[in-house]
Amino acid sequence: MITSPANPTAKAIRALRQRKEREATGSFFVEGIRLVAEAAQLGAPIERLVVAPELLASGFGRELVTGQAAAGVPVLEVSADVFAGLSQKDGPQGIGAVVRQRWEPLADVRLDTSPGWVALDRVADPGNLGTILRTADAVGACGVILVGPSTDPYDPAALRASMGAVFSQRLVRADPDELAAWKRAAGAFVLGTSDKAPLDYQAAAHPQPLVLLMGSEREGLAPELQTLCDALVSIPMRGRSDSLNLAVATGVMLYELLAQGRRA
Amino acid sequence: MITSPANPTAKAIRALRQRKEREATGSFFVEGIRLVAEAAQLGAPIERLVVAPELLASGFGRELVTGQAAAGVPVLEVSADVFAGLSQKDGPQGIGAVVRQRWEPLADVRLDTSPGWVALDRVADPGNLGTILRTADAVGACGVILVGPSTDPYDPAALRASMGAVFSQRLVRADPDELAAWKRAAGAFVLGTSDKAPLDYQAAAHPQPLVLLMGSEREGLAPELQTLCDALVSIPMRGRSDSLNLAVATGVMLYELLAQGRRA
Repeated sequence: MITSPANPTAKAIRALRQRKEREATGSFFVEGIRLVAEAAQLGAPIERLVVAPELLASGFGRELVTGQAAAGVPVLEVSADVFAGLSQKDGPQGIGAVVRQRWEPLADVRLDTSPGWVALDRVADPGNLGTILRTADAVGACGVILVGPSTDPYDPAALRASMGAVFSQRLVRADPDELAAWKRAAGAFVLGTSDKAPLDYQAAAHPQPLVLLMGSEREGLAPELQTLCDALVSIPMRGRSDSLNLAVATGVMLYELLAQGRRA
Repeated sequence: MITSPANPTAKAIRALRQRKEREATGSFFVEGIRLVAEAAQLGAPIERLVVAPELLASGFGRELVTGQAAAGVPVLEVSADVFAGLSQKDGPQGIGAVVRQRWEPLADVRLDTSPGWVALDRVADPGNLGTILRTADAVGACGVILVGPSTDPYDPAALRASMGAVFSQRLVRADPDELAAWKRAAGAFVLGTSDKAPLDYQAAAHPQPLVLLMGSEREGLAPELQTLCDALVSIPMRGRSDSLNLAVATGVMLYELLAQGRRA
């Protein structure tokens, strides 16, 4: 059992809080019974469990460890103090996992089930990204395409907000040119949103499955991406605000698409 | 000009980060040109502006200060260092305001404009509360009723997420019994949401203006509040998740109510 926070393995896990370490290693650290159980159930590539037996009171949590160990997953035992140093929770549950990131190439994206995919232009806030993954899962979307420089779905705040959907939704990265080339080749229908678009988001039904393309928190959809869209719609605003939170706007759009799919 | 972070006024402003200080004083601190401008435009009771002339480069920001000073608002000038100590932003803009909280009694709540009011049962996350205020403003709702022990709309994270809507939306606190008594007296229609409700959120149109009552992040709507509802609806879930983020769910419901209002 590791009892020193200076232990090199413990330090390496703690370093996964930083994006550059996650990118260098291709791994991330997720904590808590619920998220580790989701990772296991969804077949995420768990490299190592990290367990503080003193903290892990839950029978379900202990069985999860036993099951994973039996399946050949290495289990690192640490003291409660060492776990607290790895954890970003107030009351750490004493279980975490180092998991390999899973990115898919854009070429593998198929529009085969409705409503389809969500694409996000330069999403900056990890909480928004995690919340969008959670909503995408809720409506039965396939996954999220991150377009341009974006925050990281494996950021701890994104993982927390996703509530496990980071393990069920597929993840793709692309730059705008790649997305444009893929759209042409795939014949995909891309539905964009813009506060300036004259077409109301409920005025027309759009052919599903499609790609729902949402702009960045600060700047909305880049002009080059707006030109890619087969339709541009706006969500009505009746108050003083000129925009919605990105995760809320994406949720409103995804549930409108779900409703259109139910009516079709 | 205050140049020492140990200055008692600077310390008192910094202390407003803590809820107990906000409750003891009835004030809160808001920073940034956009939020201070919204406070001024919407006639929020600004007690004092806090300005770091070295940091306040924006002409609009400087005019805002001049205008408020001419209207009799005290202006506290501080050094860039002192302002940085008050600020929770990476690049502080050098302008902030101490503002009085505005709470209204439940007895003043009238259902006179659609879609009506949002009521939140034990909302815990300040980012969710601020985002809900922003969405409530966007659909033209009147305000938010906080039911039971709740997070604080004047928490810095709620203020940031509200994007100024904290100044346009009305705010009320009530316990469940008070809400029940008010509902009976006002004859208000209360629409609740629950993941167990058999009625789909789009299956029926509800009489507006109404009170949209949303449950807490962790536990959903308390049983005693469910019994208060004239209708209970659920938002469909097609994926692995059993719930949506609270701010997303509230956004989906508010835009459904806006759509019902547009069709009516």
